[in-house]
Amino acid sequence: MIYFDNAATTYPKPKTVYQSVMAAMTEYGANPGRGSHAMAIEGARVIYETRELLAQLFNLDDPMRVIFTFNATDALNQAIKGVLNSGDHVVTTAMEHNSVLRPIKEIEKQGVENTIVQCASDGRVNVKDIEAAVKENTKLVATTHVSNLTGTIMPIEEIGQMCKRKNLLYLVDGSQSAGVLDIDMKKYNIDLLAMPGHKGLLGPQGTGVLLINCDSVIRQLKEGGTGSESSSMVQPDFYPDKLESGTHNLPGIAGLNAGIKYILNKGTKSIYSHEKKLIDLFINEIKKNPKIKIYGPEDIDYRCGVVPINIEGIDSSDVAYRLDTEYGIAVRPGLHCAPLAHKTIGTDKIGAVRFGVGPFNKKPEILAAAKALNEISANQ
Amino acid sequence: MIYFDNAATTYPKPKTVYQSVMAAMTEYGANPGRGSHAMAIEGARVIYETRELLAQLFNLDDPMRVIFTFNATDALNQAIKGVLNSGDHVVTTAMEHNSVLRPIKEIEKQGVENTIVQCASDGRVNVKDIEAAVKENTKLVATTHVSNLTGTIMPIEEIGQMCKRKNLLYLVDGSQSAGVLDIDMKKYNIDLLAMPGHKGLLGPQGTGVLLINCDSVIRQLKEGGTGSESSSMVQPDFYPDKLESGTHNLPGIAGLNAGIKYILNKGTKSIYSHEKKLIDLFINEIKKNPKIKIYGPEDIDYRCGVVPINIEGIDSSDVAYRLDTEYGIAVRPGLHCAPLAHKTIGTDKIGAVRFGVGPFNKKPEILAAAKALNEISANQ
Repeated sequence: MIYFDNAATTYPKPKTVYQSVMAAMTEYGANPGRGSHAMAIEGARVIYETRELLAQLFNLDDPMRVIFTFNATDALNQAIKGVLNSGDHVVTTAMEHNSVLRPIKEIEKQGVENTIVQCASDGRVNVKDIEAAVKENTKLVATTHVSNLTGTIMPIEEIGQMCKRKNLLYLVDGSQSAGVLDIDMKKYNIDLLAMPGHKGLLGPQGTGVLLINCDSVIRQLKEGGTGSESSSMVQPDFYPDKLESGTHNLPGIAGLNAGIKYILNKGTKSIYSHEKKLIDLFINEIKKNPKIKIYGPEDIDYRCGVVPINIEGIDSSDVAYRLDTEYGIAVRPGLHCAPLAHKTIGTDKIGAVRFGVGPFNKKPEILAAAKALNEISANQ
Repeated sequence: MIYFDNAATTYPKPKTVYQSVMAAMTEYGANPGRGSHAMAIEGARVIYETRELLAQLFNLDDPMRVIFTFNATDALNQAIKGVLNSGDHVVTTAMEHNSVLRPIKEIEKQGVENTIVQCASDGRVNVKDIEAAVKENTKLVATTHVSNLTGTIMPIEEIGQMCKRKNLLYLVDGSQSAGVLDIDMKKYNIDLLAMPGHKGLLGPQGTGVLLINCDSVIRQLKEGGTGSESSSMVQPDFYPDKLESGTHNLPGIAGLNAGIKYILNKGTKSIYSHEKKLIDLFINEIKKNPKIKIYGPEDIDYRCGVVPINIEGIDSSDVAYRLDTEYGIAVRPGLHCAPLAHKTIGTDKIGAVRFGVGPFNKKPEILAAAKALNEISANQ
């Protein structure tokens, strides 16, 4: 199996990730932060260390403002619905995933306005267009860092500067970039950063993260046991407890801990450079084929991790099916939970075959995938 | 280590649970329901099979109404906030965990009224008191099945009958009972059943479940990618997608799958009988000691899994510390995220040392714990 579905979840993970998940289950499988016995304390220690690692990776001062969530969607809902109130306005882009668009459309019902900024056909956004969408009641700008459909890298540093200048909160969806591209929350003026633990951060599924770099009030979406202020029926008002109710996914966080250590050890620059070379090679191998349409930025410097394509005359599902069954190559076809992004690149009716590379993909796999696509396009 | 913190999370799990988690990560670690390749399909199959197993265990007709959540707290918030609207009234009990009380107190702000029914000092509730609390605008009754503090078994079948008669929705918090006591959603007239996957169901942490046995509208608390209706910015209106956004905790669900199979194979009757014998033995061994105060029902038929105690003159934290460091026995001291339950049994100022047994505890461990308590009480 050649795995190119890394934009959905990375596979494989570093061996230490599997080992850490197993250790959390078998060696200290208690409930962290609830008991006071040795196993519960070890669980709490691993969770706190993981907060520290995330704070380090994204340059956040206070590890207690690292919130563990179910997945990136959970983190994005918490951020969006936690800060926006009736009468507020939020600016986002057409390249967003449904985990941003759907919550924003949902809270229209509560009187939160939105503007969705259009993007170019390669997915790129003009910061001036975002700035032009800002109104008097704008409170939040929410953009992805990298499009999950086209791999387009958004100019988050420029957007962050504009948000700072205009005194707006800036939420970045790091789902496709965290662990691959540098994200410096302080330097880039990012107030809220959401991400999954199981993509670029190389942790297991069932993990998401929200990092908070602002003092705005963030309403929790859930209340419950926090192991703190137990005698009160009111949710605690301090981080992380305010936004973390119920039992943590300790095995997941322990695995994430190992994933982040792998990244810190390897360095995001080295991971990004590896992935960039692979997609550059891939694009060069298939762009000679006139039957293959490649979406996203032509300039490789504006693309990260993902290459969506279509073969003329074949449905994306059929391409994926043939890649899977005839070549043992895993990709994702169809629509990618980003309806306006598909409209932007013109694939809202036909979908696309998405290749997503990860840190463990190798050059021969890229060549095999390119060869497979060329063969499929020749033998329809 | 003798582990008696099973009411927080069961430990150990059956070996098949660890193996299934590992297989989900290493053998089919893709994103279930997103790609169409072999690994993604295997992940989706395991998730669907787990829905079927849960539907079987709790006698629910439609496996698509089994919702996977982050934890029991997430499931309880979804149930409570999903069905209650401004102007509605909810009845609950003083024995509830903060995962029920805190959401109910939070939505007071949105105009949802509540009545908290008082319980006897052993935690037992009188169904007539619940019925007496019902008003014209009552929509929901929410009770735990087993108190996490005292182990008191609530009369959920009788409460369910009353709810059916009065046309009320009935939400049961199965956090301490699922996998141990029989819960027949249809026979007991349970509309909504919430539980963690990592306690009696023997799955890993990071798993929770909400089972839906009614046709009431349940508003989702989160929106996002569902892999369905991807071209729409509106959350799908069918189960499970409506209430399940973003990537699933596939390793966790795979582990839960193995945990439920273990339970179905062993039978809840056998598991309950084992645990009942253990707590009966434990209580008999310590009740001779006049310095040890035991909370909860005297009649063992009204207690499940949990025995909270205090030793006269010693703080519960000190008892737990000595059990951990001198005897290698893991328990949970202090307050147990159930403020009104502590008031009900008179431990709101002092907390309690909670012993929670699991399917893998053995008689010699019980005797060792009883001996340790007797020694600690003698050597203050």
